[in-house]
Amino acid sequence: MTTEHNVLGRSLPRVDALDKVTGRATYAADVYLPDMLMCKVLTSPRSHARIVSMDTSKAEQVPGVRAVITGNDFPDRYFGSGAVRDRRIMARDEVFYIGEPVAAVAADDEVTAQEALELVEVEYEDLETIVDPLEAIREGSTLVHPDMPNFEGYGFAMGGNNCTLLDADRGDVDQAFRDANQVFEETYHSQAINQGFLEPMACAANVEANGRLTVWASTQGPYQVRAQLASVLDIPLSSIKVNAMELGGGFGAKLRLAFEAFPALLAMKTGRPVKLINTREEVFTLNGPRLATTIHLKTGVTSDGQITAREAHSVFDVGAYLGAGPNAGVGHALGAYDIPNFRLRSYGVYTNKIYVGSYRASGVADMHFAVESHMDSIAHQIGLDPLEFRLKNVVKEGDANVSGASVPANGLLETIEAVKEKMSLPRKSEEGRGIGISLGEWRSGSGPSTASISVNEDGTVSLLTGSVDISGSDTSLAQIAAETLGVELDQVIVAKRDTDMAPFTGPSGGSRIVYSQGKAVQMAAEDARDRLVGLAAERFGVPSEALSCEGGRVYVQDNPPQSLTLSQLAAASLTSRSGPIIGMAALSSMPYAPVFNTQAAEVIVDKATGQVRVTRFVQAQDVGVAINPMGVEGQLEGGAVQGIGRALSEEMQIDPETGRVRNPSLSTYLMPLAIDMPAIENILVGVPSADGPFGARAVAEPPGFGPPAAIANAIYDAVGIRIKELPLSADRVLAALQGQDGDEYHIDVEALKKAETG
Amino acid sequence: MTTEHNVLGRSLPRVDALDKVTGRATYAADVYLPDMLMCKVLTSPRSHARIVSMDTSKAEQVPGVRAVITGNDFPDRYFGSGAVRDRRIMARDEVFYIGEPVAAVAADDEVTAQEALELVEVEYEDLETIVDPLEAIREGSTLVHPDMPNFEGYGFAMGGNNCTLLDADRGDVDQAFRDANQVFEETYHSQAINQGFLEPMACAANVEANGRLTVWASTQGPYQVRAQLASVLDIPLSSIKVNAMELGGGFGAKLRLAFEAFPALLAMKTGRPVKLINTREEVFTLNGPRLATTIHLKTGVTSDGQITAREAHSVFDVGAYLGAGPNAGVGHALGAYDIPNFRLRSYGVYTNKIYVGSYRASGVADMHFAVESHMDSIAHQIGLDPLEFRLKNVVKEGDANVSGASVPANGLLETIEAVKEKMSLPRKSEEGRGIGISLGEWRSGSGPSTASISVNEDGTVSLLTGSVDISGSDTSLAQIAAETLGVELDQVIVAKRDTDMAPFTGPSGGSRIVYSQGKAVQMAAEDARDRLVGLAAERFGVPSEALSCEGGRVYVQDNPPQSLTLSQLAAASLTSRSGPIIGMAALSSMPYAPVFNTQAAEVIVDKATGQVRVTRFVQAQDVGVAINPMGVEGQLEGGAVQGIGRALSEEMQIDPETGRVRNPSLSTYLMPLAIDMPAIENILVGVPSADGPFGARAVAEPPGFGPPAAIANAIYDAVGIRIKELPLSADRVLAALQGQDGDEYHIDVEALKKAETG
Repeated sequence: MTTEHNVLGRSLPRVDALDKVTGRATYAADVYLPDMLMCKVLTSPRSHARIVSMDTSKAEQVPGVRAVITGNDFPDRYFGSGAVRDRRIMARDEVFYIGEPVAAVAADDEVTAQEALELVEVEYEDLETIVDPLEAIREGSTLVHPDMPNFEGYGFAMGGNNCTLLDADRGDVDQAFRDANQVFEETYHSQAINQGFLEPMACAANVEANGRLTVWASTQGPYQVRAQLASVLDIPLSSIKVNAMELGGGFGAKLRLAFEAFPALLAMKTGRPVKLINTREEVFTLNGPRLATTIHLKTGVTSDGQITAREAHSVFDVGAYLGAGPNAGVGHALGAYDIPNFRLRSYGVYTNKIYVGSYRASGVADMHFAVESHMDSIAHQIGLDPLEFRLKNVVKEGDANVSGASVPANGLLETIEAVKEKMSLPRKSEEGRGIGISLGEWRSGSGPSTASISVNEDGTVSLLTGSVDISGSDTSLAQIAAETLGVELDQVIVAKRDTDMAPFTGPSGGSRIVYSQGKAVQMAAEDARDRLVGLAAERFGVPSEALSCEGGRVYVQDNPPQSLTLSQLAAASLTSRSGPIIGMAALSSMPYAPVFNTQAAEVIVDKATGQVRVTRFVQAQDVGVAINPMGVEGQLEGGAVQGIGRALSEEMQIDPETGRVRNPSLSTYLMPLAIDMPAIENILVGVPSADGPFGARAVAEPPGFGPPAAIANAIYDAVGIRIKELPLSADRVLAALQGQDGDEYHIDVEALKKAETG
Repeated sequence: MTTEHNVLGRSLPRVDALDKVTGRATYAADVYLPDMLMCKVLTSPRSHARIVSMDTSKAEQVPGVRAVITGNDFPDRYFGSGAVRDRRIMARDEVFYIGEPVAAVAADDEVTAQEALELVEVEYEDLETIVDPLEAIREGSTLVHPDMPNFEGYGFAMGGNNCTLLDADRGDVDQAFRDANQVFEETYHSQAINQGFLEPMACAANVEANGRLTVWASTQGPYQVRAQLASVLDIPLSSIKVNAMELGGGFGAKLRLAFEAFPALLAMKTGRPVKLINTREEVFTLNGPRLATTIHLKTGVTSDGQITAREAHSVFDVGAYLGAGPNAGVGHALGAYDIPNFRLRSYGVYTNKIYVGSYRASGVADMHFAVESHMDSIAHQIGLDPLEFRLKNVVKEGDANVSGASVPANGLLETIEAVKEKMSLPRKSEEGRGIGISLGEWRSGSGPSTASISVNEDGTVSLLTGSVDISGSDTSLAQIAAETLGVELDQVIVAKRDTDMAPFTGPSGGSRIVYSQGKAVQMAAEDARDRLVGLAAERFGVPSEALSCEGGRVYVQDNPPQSLTLSQLAAASLTSRSGPIIGMAALSSMPYAPVFNTQAAEVIVDKATGQVRVTRFVQAQDVGVAINPMGVEGQLEGGAVQGIGRALSEEMQIDPETGRVRNPSLSTYLMPLAIDMPAIENILVGVPSADGPFGARAVAEPPGFGPPAAIANAIYDAVGIRIKELPLSADRVLAALQGQDGDEYHIDVEALKKAETG
């Protein structure tokens, strides 16, 4: 698919590879400024309490302490926007979870700051607490936020602890269930989970003499940090510059304002630079994780295996604040299938625990676990091969997607075929060893995207974008620019940027960078290319249409030796009428371009211990066109590894009485190790998208979707037990093998329906 | 002239004022990086010598020394472009002046580096030396560069030590002299002079892991530093990022590569960051100053005071290398006058002394001293009032300038009238007290200019330009952007920039920033404004032409209440089809727009000591439109102060045998002090230019032109002596008062003419 390309489609090393592996890349924690102070944050030890009084005077008197702030030092406002705007940056009169910030100290060093924290005296008066979301959603339940202003604009909430509701409906679902030959109902549950990024959150702030605030942030969204910081501090955007530093992983956890406001306000108070670096424990207790999700699915099927209807009710625990859109997964309750009748509901529910954050397509992995386990379960119950049952129902070009948009050409069937062949499916069952599959679907991310290109006077190229490099996206963007301009990758420099110099760009998340930001880069490069061609046309006295730009030169199509190199043209541009060669582009919304994948796991289940070992993992994904196949495979592997961790071992243990995180360390929060991983086999399918740069589709999110269901289905294939709760840990598998029931999660669907219809 | 403007024409404080006065602004010397080394440079003690051998081994063995480089470590090439391309960055086999770099050391600290330098053993074999440019230009003179390759493209050189020749001719000069009633011939001489910037040159360099070089430079021209560094090191432009730091004065001295190559190469050798900071002595001995100029003028005049012809031969000493265009002054031999016949020649001549650099319209101040003294001298000799004689001959709208271009509408006459009125001219002479005037002319600078504008989602604005802020130009550019977009100045942020992120922009010099770069900013802001208006037009369903953008909002002209604020529009743009609001512009050449000024000095001459005291200084300049009157006045005052220093006291004393700078310190190089200065009275005349932003013209260069001639003419008015040599120091004035002749400078015009006609 890439034969006609020069730079595109080649597995070129990341442009920042050497900086990263030699330790020269500069992360937020590496920012050192003269007279810098260190910040530590005091958090609430209570699940829900009124702050009766606070006394910071003893803390302030500790030698080396330069300032102490509390929630009262911030303007009295909530912040955020859209789905994520009910949070206070620091508690004022009331705390809503264990771990909520109540004060922060800036001192000459971290030890002094920590000592001072312990001298801040806070008197609390405990209030009623609710931790279980399925209880919290019930009518008459204890309220987490009795006084919370009622936000509008993101779904609608029913009141009580239900803060968001997303819905999608089509057809006559009740009739379809009546007409179905069989109806299946199941409830699935997925665990609270940490994003597991390598680099703990860090940030630094400094106030320039002119009053402007400079913030160095570990962020996926510098413009979001700028906007939210402006909101929290009640100052204009132009008073803030955000430097997005090298990012040691984010996976959605670093999409929004984290703790930047604390060093920022402390810098304003002290006139000195202030830095904050989270400990690993704080990564687990301060920064919003994903919380547990319970999903009830109901599916009607005809006798020949056609799905006629689906009803889905999912309850997403959002913790004490809506720190992220809780229920992006609502539409994903259909999975990758064409289902004529559906009623989908997704509820966000407040509880007294740490607020929810984003994590690699928030909520969608939970939904895929439920849907793809459910599909497997139904197939077995109606006696069809799971793959055959899926193939009968998959969405095809021209079908309507969940929002009614027509599904364009895509590679879903190719991904299924590729995995089927690679895994030699269907394969004969074997006791203790099984294979499970999972289909995934996502859309290529959109949103505001800008880029500018400058062609230097020797023909090399500078690319300025506001997007943060995660997962090597700078390299892909540079490849797009190089390909468009007909130069080599090493002739393109991606400029380091801050929010002052690069125009607004959406955050690096939701699989949007290559598809949308890449499109802006392509358009900016085309703009620059058109100017180069225009300059050559002037010199040659021919129309621009008679020229081509390739291989570092612009030439007359009918007479290729008549040419000028980019270097000659760029040098000439400096004294040409129209000046130096630049190109610029902005866009905000890209057309719907779905991404499908198929993933399969082979497992061995140790019946004595319940231990599940993944022995093979195969995945095929329709990436449209792989801008950098090595980078794409890196994304596929990283996603699969995270998904396998989610499937087998990772779980934030949260105390059911208090909401406290019980295992805030990497020794107790079990991220998978290299030794736990099979070799991951990747297959890139390429059905170009209509609008992405060179046909590219998004890549990043789908690889994380399938592992939990694929592994759960493989366990069923191996030992005949269906586990509906994550993680699929040895004790849980062993208990199931021993015939014990798992926990029961019950969503009172009838009550929810009744509340909706009033 | 500014009543219809909101931000333009107001004396707003500089946007960087607080950073500067509180010491927070970061200069190149303030760059600290971990493991940074310090660099010191060894220079030649010989005027002209062959390097027989060099041994750096002892220096390398000094503990703390990390690397030593010599000229042989650089690629074997000259560098620069156009007029300034015969320099080696470090001597290889031969040295051509005392002070030429021969080696550099990087060590843990400066003291160690300096110690090591003293252990570098260099054996020299002396060669013949020539120091006097008037001798050097003679046929058969000792050659400074017998082996120098012959460069083309900038005037032509006659060979020998003459490296450049600029010429301009019109009419039949010889006939015009024959027809004139009187012909006057005089020779003037101006001294070698240092640019007198406050901040000694400093730079730092670091090599990133990926091999890219980052340079922090004290420069007016980051793209020029990048290009010349690429040439010296023989690497592509994309391998270099130049951060232009805050600039503590440059005045032309920092237009080009200075010493950045030394820390750069040392950083490449050691893998560690390296910094170099000049001492004040090195400011005088290492960095190109202006050298002496001798100018012979011949003028034919009719009996009623009309000038019929002028011949000018000027000899510019360029030192050992052509570090700057030596003879920009050629056309200025006409002054601000319409002279029908002329023959103008300007010669650049090599000598064995420090290479010449740029200084605030290099050569033009020298030429104005000669021309305006000469005009005064002729007026007195033919019995006309000096002002009247000038008025008879001044250039007027529609006259041809020296290159034949038609002179557009301008404010020359208004500046003369303004000064005449302010000084109550003509005034009756008074023994020991006199008034002298001088007219000046310049053109608004052009060259490659780019700008981009981003409108933030709260309606504040980021401006990205590649130009370095000298003299408050960032503030003027921000005012242009604010005025164009209809916002307040504090809503515009000028982003700090490096060569990676901002497209190519010409250097900050030659009075080009406001006129050309300001035009690019205006165009970029108009582009952004058009997009805002377009978005509003879509929302209102009216054509763009029906809308206006003013006062922070876009409104329907026929119904002003129907409006959207910039903040509303910018926020809406994020989800609009065309994306975030950005604007961009590039240009390279701006039309000819002259700048004229009139300056007058009143002096008291102490006949006992020869001391000259300037008691008043009045100047009027046609600035077109003053973007920021306070900034404009600052430029006028700064230029006048520099001109008064040039007139009265400043002089680099250069040993006539060896070319050594004899007074490399501020205690012996006499820059004027505040106590030496009169209050300077400024009058801004505003005849808008046709093409400058809002009608602005250039400001910076002309204020420095007039003081030497105005003061010399005032001395003549006061005590009846005509001094033709700068500076007009007390000893020189006293000698003249005592009837002693000054030095004789003789240009052999006949020999030069003969050489030209061959």
